[in-house]
Amino acid sequence: MTEPSDRHDAPRYLEQAVQLAIRNVAEGGGPFGALVVTPDGRVHEGVNRVTRDNDPTAHAEVVAIRKAATACSNFDLTGAVLYTSCEPCPLCLSAALWARIDRVYYAADRHGAAAAGFDDAVFYDYFNGTRQELLPVAHHGIPTSEAPFDAWRATADRTEY
Amino acid sequence: MTEPSDRHDAPRYLEQAVQLAIRNVAEGGGPFGALVVTPDGRVHEGVNRVTRDNDPTAHAEVVAIRKAATACSNFDLTGAVLYTSCEPCPLCLSAALWARIDRVYYAADRHGAAAAGFDDAVFYDYFNGTRQELLPVAHHGIPTSEAPFDAWRATADRTEY
Repeated sequence: MTEPSDRHDAPRYLEQAVQLAIRNVAEGGGPFGALVVTPDGRVHEGVNRVTRDNDPTAHAEVVAIRKAATACSNFDLTGAVLYTSCEPCPLCLSAALWARIDRVYYAADRHGAAAAGFDDAVFYDYFNGTRQELLPVAHHGIPTSEAPFDAWRATADRTEY
Repeated sequence: MTEPSDRHDAPRYLEQAVQLAIRNVAEGGGPFGALVVTPDGRVHEGVNRVTRDNDPTAHAEVVAIRKAATACSNFDLTGAVLYTSCEPCPLCLSAALWARIDRVYYAADRHGAAAAGFDDAVFYDYFNGTRQELLPVAHHGIPTSEAPFDAWRATADRTEY
């Protein structure tokens, strides 16, 4: 595999993401910033808006991904690159996976986030299976459990993703 | 630990989530529905809107969590329970973790979702470390990497989450 060309852009875009993060703190938000660069070269910015919007999912990366998808009128961001001021937490990585982002670059890591009081590292442990008590998840089958999937398969003009 | 009281509500709320999912397919959306029940007893509904809103993060659970947080004017949903028609994918579980949801119940599982063509199980493998090629993630430290966290720590009136 050859080195991806976006690697050369990483320092510049990461600096831009860090500056967004610093500015967001001054504006009362969390210390995180991110950019999604779509294949057309457009740059879609996001900052953490959890506390200001009362939205626990409004992480910088999620905000940038949602903006990019809106701007592209497409839920599929294949070919896009995500640059973020800090290592993406499991929420943001999952959002990038679903958005079919090609590649992620980050500046600070989960340990820097933990030192600032954020739970990113703990939530990675949840997915590693070592902190399951954080959120008990119970399977509770009912007779209609599979009915939505049956309806989906029976829909000829469904939009897959 | 005693059995949680919300366990008795599970079949009724799961049936409601499944019916939302079925209706969502009829309306052109994905086969997923979810409810967040907040401690005040209010029920906040969500359906999958990925393809209709061009939002790769608009999973039923995320939509329900965002609605509940807006309705409660609080990014912290401690004491809330999430009921969902299908086992939450890593995106939705992460959203529930950040929202401090107490507990999750689901009807269908990730294998049912996979049989219907959805990548939930594959993305769990990503977090298990067995499908890292799905999304390469590179650390690329820059001189200002920690500056947002320094700014955060220097902000006396910060809102933590």
